[in-house]
Amino acid sequence: MNEKIEQAIKIMQEQGVDMWLTFVRETSATPDPVLDLIAGTNVVWPSAFILTASGQATAIVGSLDMQTVRDHASRYEVVGYRDSVRQPLLEALAQYQPRRIAINYSTNDVMADGMSHGMYLMLQEYLQDTPYASALETSEALVAALRGRKSPAELARIRRAIKETLDIYDQVTRYAKPGMSEQALAAFITEQMQAKGLTPAWGADHCPSVFTGPDTAGAHAGPTGRLIEPGHIMNIDFGVRFEGYVSDLQRTWYFRRPGEQEAPAEVQKGFKTIYEAIQKAAAALKPGVEGWTIDHIARQHIVDAGYEEYPHALGHQVGRNAHDGAGLLCPIWERYKNLPYLKVEVGQVYTLEPRLTVAGRGVVTIEEMVVVTESGCEFLSPPQTELIVI
Amino acid sequence: MNEKIEQAIKIMQEQGVDMWLTFVRETSATPDPVLDLIAGTNVVWPSAFILTASGQATAIVGSLDMQTVRDHASRYEVVGYRDSVRQPLLEALAQYQPRRIAINYSTNDVMADGMSHGMYLMLQEYLQDTPYASALETSEALVAALRGRKSPAELARIRRAIKETLDIYDQVTRYAKPGMSEQALAAFITEQMQAKGLTPAWGADHCPSVFTGPDTAGAHAGPTGRLIEPGHIMNIDFGVRFEGYVSDLQRTWYFRRPGEQEAPAEVQKGFKTIYEAIQKAAAALKPGVEGWTIDHIARQHIVDAGYEEYPHALGHQVGRNAHDGAGLLCPIWERYKNLPYLKVEVGQVYTLEPRLTVAGRGVVTIEEMVVVTESGCEFLSPPQTELIVI
Repeated sequence: MNEKIEQAIKIMQEQGVDMWLTFVRETSATPDPVLDLIAGTNVVWPSAFILTASGQATAIVGSLDMQTVRDHASRYEVVGYRDSVRQPLLEALAQYQPRRIAINYSTNDVMADGMSHGMYLMLQEYLQDTPYASALETSEALVAALRGRKSPAELARIRRAIKETLDIYDQVTRYAKPGMSEQALAAFITEQMQAKGLTPAWGADHCPSVFTGPDTAGAHAGPTGRLIEPGHIMNIDFGVRFEGYVSDLQRTWYFRRPGEQEAPAEVQKGFKTIYEAIQKAAAALKPGVEGWTIDHIARQHIVDAGYEEYPHALGHQVGRNAHDGAGLLCPIWERYKNLPYLKVEVGQVYTLEPRLTVAGRGVVTIEEMVVVTESGCEFLSPPQTELIVI
Repeated sequence: MNEKIEQAIKIMQEQGVDMWLTFVRETSATPDPVLDLIAGTNVVWPSAFILTASGQATAIVGSLDMQTVRDHASRYEVVGYRDSVRQPLLEALAQYQPRRIAINYSTNDVMADGMSHGMYLMLQEYLQDTPYASALETSEALVAALRGRKSPAELARIRRAIKETLDIYDQVTRYAKPGMSEQALAAFITEQMQAKGLTPAWGADHCPSVFTGPDTAGAHAGPTGRLIEPGHIMNIDFGVRFEGYVSDLQRTWYFRRPGEQEAPAEVQKGFKTIYEAIQKAAAALKPGVEGWTIDHIARQHIVDAGYEEYPHALGHQVGRNAHDGAGLLCPIWERYKNLPYLKVEVGQVYTLEPRLTVAGRGVVTIEEMVVVTESGCEFLSPPQTELIVI
């Protein structure tokens, strides 16, 4: 917590932002994603978490929320109120006199868009007739740097989440066989996870996701009663949370028909194409490149091999959330806004997860996780180099 | 799910709203509280859940989210997109031509304020140069009615959550003794809850909350290492979730000193005052009254008995969330905005939870839950009538 707060203050100095104001209420129902990084607890009444480039940290919260903020985020001077946050907020602004105030709204990056429109209107009302109304700006650059640049402690937790996930994938390889349903295999994975005392990286209804055969449901759907059949491809999308940080990894299996020694040529070709797309993309990923160029390398490789292009981004950042926002390795599609153009930075963790369909067999998709280094990127675990044949 | 969607359509007809547009993205990180009622699943890409007063239901979602929406909310016609939500959204508006479009922002009610400011700006951009930009209005009245008016199925789940909570409180009475820490007792409660296969009604770090003695931390804080001592009051704030619906109940215990037969007079007086405040408030609670009048009755009773007034609302609504938003039994303080003036409606579930401090002993607080009926209100479980003396 305090580590990320200090990092935020340094980034504010770097970006020339005087104050970062996180303005929230009832955060168990309407959380702001930055609170995990700078508060570590929920608040009920309207609350202002204020950091300044000069290193001040003030939390203005309802009197009943004071203790939990003190317990979880000792860096703050905690100011309590009973009737309204307005007066203590105006006093804090008057004390610091910020010329640039970053607040959490963004059309580009959901992780910097934790302020509700109602809270924005409330803030506008409080600030009218003050110089601070015109000092408000998006915190998206600040939040992108803060979430993206992982500390050694954050990286260690992500590596551990990855290790636990790969261990469970090894168990899947020993356990899975034709005739099992997607749901049964998902239940097995969930049991393994719970036995380790871990929780899923995203919603339990589709973490794990298990997809098998040519009629698979696709991407963000939950496992079905569909049975694994010989001659089909299976892929699983799964991750776990370890001390607040997550993994997000996919692997692909093939189930042999009676008499088959190995996977058919078209399945092998599909796997090889995905493997190569990831290797090519990873070879090009380094600080300073724009995300779309990396997506383009993988996408083009797959199209050149004769497949349809995948209908999503090549990769997203991972941290406290499986989809951790900001810079994305994605095509230039309108829904991605400015994210394809953001430059890759040292310390960011990305997935690489192209996919393709092998007609009559199923979907081949591998998802690896890499961390960006000074000179390129490094796989956070051994990549899947061979189709797992059962 | 479908039950609440049909109810929403009826409320739109009643309120003269043509369309309700819930516009969200990456809802695992930035949830809109209404999605639990009308979707039941998360979506990743920008998505529009559209209901019309004429009974249409359309969900425009990213292609990878189509299956999960179909699986969880069969009432919707699901429209998928790859590049941008803009075009299908404009097409849906052109088809229905709504004159009044409710969207989820509200300065008053957090439960109707699930739209981020970034999503609001995105919507404004999409709607510019259309007649729909000026048709947008707050959904707060719609959301208040939809969340507040509980169906028999919703009430049954709340009753069950209450029963499980009271069972655990009975176990606490058999288990607790002086020398135990707040944290140890909280751990015991958590074990009982998990043994029943239930999850906490709010954040596990302060559900249960256990407070003992005169130096107690107060309201939204977690249990500490403080030990239960003879001569002290203990109170616990706890609830569980059963099939999506929660309980929120407080009880108060007294630990006798050696030789004491019963609690000292000042502790008994404190308990009696809280009990009477709840009974008086419940006697006045009925459809059509404004919430602040009920808070005033309980508050005045406590002040008249010589205690300081409690620094919070008398009661809040309960449903899928412990703090379920909208109409509140609260004083007219600025931070409550217009909520004190909202009229009580049949089918709403409220807590009644006044508190007071007995000097040198601790905090007395009881929290009951009631449902509003045609003629008054009904306790959802037997109220605590006697201090529990250990």
